[in-house]
Amino acid sequence: MNLSTVSEALKIILNTSENFGTEEVNFLDSVGRVLKEDIIADRDFPPFNRVSMDGIAIAFEAFSKGQRVFKIEGVQAAGSKQLTLQNSTNCVEAMTGAMLPMNTDVVIQYELLTIENKVATVNTDEIKKNKNVHLKGLDRKKGDVLIPKNTKISSAEVGVFATVGKTIVTVAKQPKVMIISTGNELVDVSENPAEHQIRRSNVFTLVSLLDKLKIKTETAHIPDDKNLLLSKIERFLNEYDVLLFSGAVSKGKFDYIPDVLDKLGVQKLFHRVQQRPGKPFWFGKKGFKTVFAFPGNPVSTFVSCLKYFYSWYYKSVGLNFENQNEAILNEDFYFKPNLTYFLQVKITQINGNIYATPVKGRGSADLVNLVDADAFLELPDNRSNFIKGEVFPLIMYR
Amino acid sequence: MNLSTVSEALKIILNTSENFGTEEVNFLDSVGRVLKEDIIADRDFPPFNRVSMDGIAIAFEAFSKGQRVFKIEGVQAAGSKQLTLQNSTNCVEAMTGAMLPMNTDVVIQYELLTIENKVATVNTDEIKKNKNVHLKGLDRKKGDVLIPKNTKISSAEVGVFATVGKTIVTVAKQPKVMIISTGNELVDVSENPAEHQIRRSNVFTLVSLLDKLKIKTETAHIPDDKNLLLSKIERFLNEYDVLLFSGAVSKGKFDYIPDVLDKLGVQKLFHRVQQRPGKPFWFGKKGFKTVFAFPGNPVSTFVSCLKYFYSWYYKSVGLNFENQNEAILNEDFYFKPNLTYFLQVKITQINGNIYATPVKGRGSADLVNLVDADAFLELPDNRSNFIKGEVFPLIMYR
Repeated sequence: MNLSTVSEALKIILNTSENFGTEEVNFLDSVGRVLKEDIIADRDFPPFNRVSMDGIAIAFEAFSKGQRVFKIEGVQAAGSKQLTLQNSTNCVEAMTGAMLPMNTDVVIQYELLTIENKVATVNTDEIKKNKNVHLKGLDRKKGDVLIPKNTKISSAEVGVFATVGKTIVTVAKQPKVMIISTGNELVDVSENPAEHQIRRSNVFTLVSLLDKLKIKTETAHIPDDKNLLLSKIERFLNEYDVLLFSGAVSKGKFDYIPDVLDKLGVQKLFHRVQQRPGKPFWFGKKGFKTVFAFPGNPVSTFVSCLKYFYSWYYKSVGLNFENQNEAILNEDFYFKPNLTYFLQVKITQINGNIYATPVKGRGSADLVNLVDADAFLELPDNRSNFIKGEVFPLIMYR
Repeated sequence: MNLSTVSEALKIILNTSENFGTEEVNFLDSVGRVLKEDIIADRDFPPFNRVSMDGIAIAFEAFSKGQRVFKIEGVQAAGSKQLTLQNSTNCVEAMTGAMLPMNTDVVIQYELLTIENKVATVNTDEIKKNKNVHLKGLDRKKGDVLIPKNTKISSAEVGVFATVGKTIVTVAKQPKVMIISTGNELVDVSENPAEHQIRRSNVFTLVSLLDKLKIKTETAHIPDDKNLLLSKIERFLNEYDVLLFSGAVSKGKFDYIPDVLDKLGVQKLFHRVQQRPGKPFWFGKKGFKTVFAFPGNPVSTFVSCLKYFYSWYYKSVGLNFENQNEAILNEDFYFKPNLTYFLQVKITQINGNIYATPVKGRGSADLVNLVDADAFLELPDNRSNFIKGEVFPLIMYR
């Protein structure tokens, strides 16, 4: 047997990442995508000396000479042009978000004032120059890079796009992905399966896992017929960047996928990985086209997509993602085979520690266990006893 | 001053959660929504004694009597009707996913066989009954609850929906939400602001934060004009379940929102919270309608939405969500005012521990800092010195 280890398999996959170019999207549709341009400050932030509390703007010099009573000349509203304090012993009422009036350099908030008959009396002796003034350019200067390219966009970035007027942003283009199920036992979700049949589910799990990456996908089902597989997969290889298969990669008489892919000129980079679940995983390339052929049982497909396709995708769009999540095993666990074991776990957080508790599984085909778990803990292949308190890599899916 | 503490404010908000009923959606559109029906097994899982390795199916009794050579009667493919072993000393080739042939009770995988001229020779003496057979009903029984209602739907649940043929699922209906900015200093994202103006950004941050909850929203801008505010907000109160405001809730001369809401019969449940940023936060109800009026500076709006609106929403849709995330402060931090401080932090994970490192902020209005951070660490209001190694609640936004 010529199995790849999990780390060998991952390394091979990461070496085949592709660049799908860029595209422009509306800034409100950009969340979850990877930014492919630097976002630059189009002006200083704040763009003017900005009032940061409601109150009166005065010349600090007057206050420092002992003056405490100020006649109100006018009101500086947010969104109004800058006023000028005409008499340096008067004041201007000034609102949060407004420009600081010319000839003033401090704002005293209403909480420290008494105002009567258009005269403000200051009830404190502790005022510092520039207090309650957010100085022009303090946060960022015009021309500063506010968000560097290759950032994964979240709501925080959306706010910055709006601030600098970027209604359209350049992001990494997504690969065109076709998700294919095979297997004569499968019927459609809307059908009633006969006793020997089951419904298709893996393709929809994959659709959903890729949707999380904002990749829109298409799906197809091909019966276990070699000629049909040849003709359809040939067409898909022309039309799509990535093919994801679920099933027909093991040793069965109808596991045609490796042979068909070989005939179509897809170069096998590995077949079979030293892992459970997902041992029969097949991976190959034809030019720029990438083929992930996952084993057909539901948990194999699920964890292989997270471990391998996600990593390949992140690298391809420039995130240089390395999964650094880890968790603390919360119970002793025993697993004998010399395989990396993706243990289904429930996550709890206590005192800033992440604990992973094994979910009692009934084998790699038990899709329902995924519902009771939150993540996979990746237990290495060179040992059998895993002790409570040890730390292992964690693959979250919630 | 009559400030609510953060926990008082949150308690008041959670006490006003609403039930928006349910709706049916396609199972592929259900991710992120909250399930409002139990998902039941429509048959046993597996639905038949299922072959779990490719090989030959035999009667264990023949093997236990010492027989090692089996004539192949036929092939049991996945998706084919169940075959019957005619002669109990023969075998049937059986494929992963197939029904176990009648009169057989163990599958021996190809790796342990030599096959020549339609005869299989078993090269091991260690075979157990039922080996490589996934017994009918082992994972789940017909009628079992596979996914209980009030589960937040992920890709794992989508696979189970497909398996049981649920193409349409019942989920919590979303509230109708209107997001409103006010403030004459604001111009549209696509405009070039004059010196005293800035672009609208908070409404788009809110759109994006609610989009993460799969809530589709609408936005509006109303100038600082009391009559306009009265008429527009009155209409919005009729048409929407929730209004989210950003700005005009502080002490400024044009901060009309609290007064306008009062005139429109919205009952103030609190105004001003002992927190930074976000102190002027106003919250109220009119019947079933809920009004969150966040302060206008970007970071206030951002953190208040995560802390208060998210919690209210989760409770409303039945998640009974309690944020149990915590992180370990990674540097000493000093904050003097008697306010809960939402500290912007960068998260790192080491050995299953979550560390929060403060991002040097330039005040609550600095939206760009959000880009450099991942989360807020919630530092309590009754102290000033926070020591490296202490654990505090964490609000993640990436």
